[in-house]
Amino acid sequence: MTTLAFKLTIAYDGSNYSGWQKQKNAKTIQEEIETRLAIITDSPVTLHGAGRTDAGVHAKAMTAHFHTDKKRTTKSIQNGLNSLLPKDIRVIDCTRVDVSFHARFNARAKIYSYHIFQGEIQPPTERLYAIHVPFPLNIDNMRTCLAELVGTHDFSSFEAAGSRDTTSDTGRGAIRTIEKATIKKDGNRIALFVQGDGFLRHMVRNIAGTLIEVGKNKRSVENFKATLAAKDRSQGGSTAPAHGLFLEQVLY
Amino acid sequence: MTTLAFKLTIAYDGSNYSGWQKQKNAKTIQEEIETRLAIITDSPVTLHGAGRTDAGVHAKAMTAHFHTDKKRTTKSIQNGLNSLLPKDIRVIDCTRVDVSFHARFNARAKIYSYHIFQGEIQPPTERLYAIHVPFPLNIDNMRTCLAELVGTHDFSSFEAAGSRDTTSDTGRGAIRTIEKATIKKDGNRIALFVQGDGFLRHMVRNIAGTLIEVGKNKRSVENFKATLAAKDRSQGGSTAPAHGLFLEQVLY
Repeated sequence: MTTLAFKLTIAYDGSNYSGWQKQKNAKTIQEEIETRLAIITDSPVTLHGAGRTDAGVHAKAMTAHFHTDKKRTTKSIQNGLNSLLPKDIRVIDCTRVDVSFHARFNARAKIYSYHIFQGEIQPPTERLYAIHVPFPLNIDNMRTCLAELVGTHDFSSFEAAGSRDTTSDTGRGAIRTIEKATIKKDGNRIALFVQGDGFLRHMVRNIAGTLIEVGKNKRSVENFKATLAAKDRSQGGSTAPAHGLFLEQVLY
Repeated sequence: MTTLAFKLTIAYDGSNYSGWQKQKNAKTIQEEIETRLAIITDSPVTLHGAGRTDAGVHAKAMTAHFHTDKKRTTKSIQNGLNSLLPKDIRVIDCTRVDVSFHARFNARAKIYSYHIFQGEIQPPTERLYAIHVPFPLNIDNMRTCLAELVGTHDFSSFEAAGSRDTTSDTGRGAIRTIEKATIKKDGNRIALFVQGDGFLRHMVRNIAGTLIEVGKNKRSVENFKATLAAKDRSQGGSTAPAHGLFLEQVLY
């Protein structure tokens, strides 16, 4: 009996889910997919995601891997999942990988985006995918602050208090490396893009929340720099809502 | 006591509603707004829409008018409604109009759009706002057919069977004038835009459904022309789903 390993790339609208990770009495992306994989492979399957996304967070390309002893083609898995899954979860790719591949441990970096609509009235069809800040933001200051994050820093000021994930803590504490951080403005639509080798719990949402305070001129660039240097969550801004956040890509 | 007349311009995501028009035991856009207007004006209000949209149909700019004896400013009405309404209904404009203004009778033309995603896998965040046709469509033939609709025709072949709205029938039967009809393609996203002086029930969805058959090469351009000329609903194609349709604009 040969064990086959597969990597899935998954897009989802997180609006109706309690996040990625399986939990009791809650509808989760992981469980939705696992139950369909069990049908397709006719056996129980454990799906290992590249990370977790919180309740309400979306993904353009989450990745995950699983093993099975049943002979299935990538196309039959992808098509089977897409025919069985609800339309707010789509498998956009399925590939064979070596059995040593691990979606989380082998991930080199992740890219997240955070979306803000700054017009007075948010179009109803965009309300689930961007937060609404009904006045113009100071983009120049936000961009300056975002650039400060690039590099290797202790991100304690942007980590959800008391929430370190001990299963994924690799001994580096709150130290992470942000490789790229950009902000794009298209009319009233603002998007932050952050690429890093790892993210603490709520890190992107806490960065977004603090940057929005900068954008509102309620917090200066100097204050933002001091906040990062303080390594103190109590100095960071509020946690921006989940529905503005997208996991864009997992890099290997 | 002076009667004031106001015109509202309203955007909505129709996903969670049984259409525009008020009806028993159903959640409708009209009733959602009327109940809030009653709060704002402290009196019952009847809202007259420029038309009806079916269950699940969206609007970028529906228009409606109402009268009230209570003194209110346009800004207080707009802001009051937007603070009381759910976020899937937004009042994007409110203006004073003459008491003789009627949102439906004074409408000169309407523009509808119909949206199709023709890629293999539809992004989850677009699933509520475009229908999914998972293979490339013959756009050239669709464009040729769409152009055939421009002008004054009897659109019986695209009218929902036995559903003439007698309250709005102006004696012209199924004769309507299409002023513009275009198709836009942006990668896998296809949008039909149709501007006309009036639309029969399900007319845009029946046109879209028939054009999709043309796009799939299941129906020829010649057959499409013959279908229009036949004035016979049984020759038209199927009714495309509601969630691909947007009321774009009402022209006065």
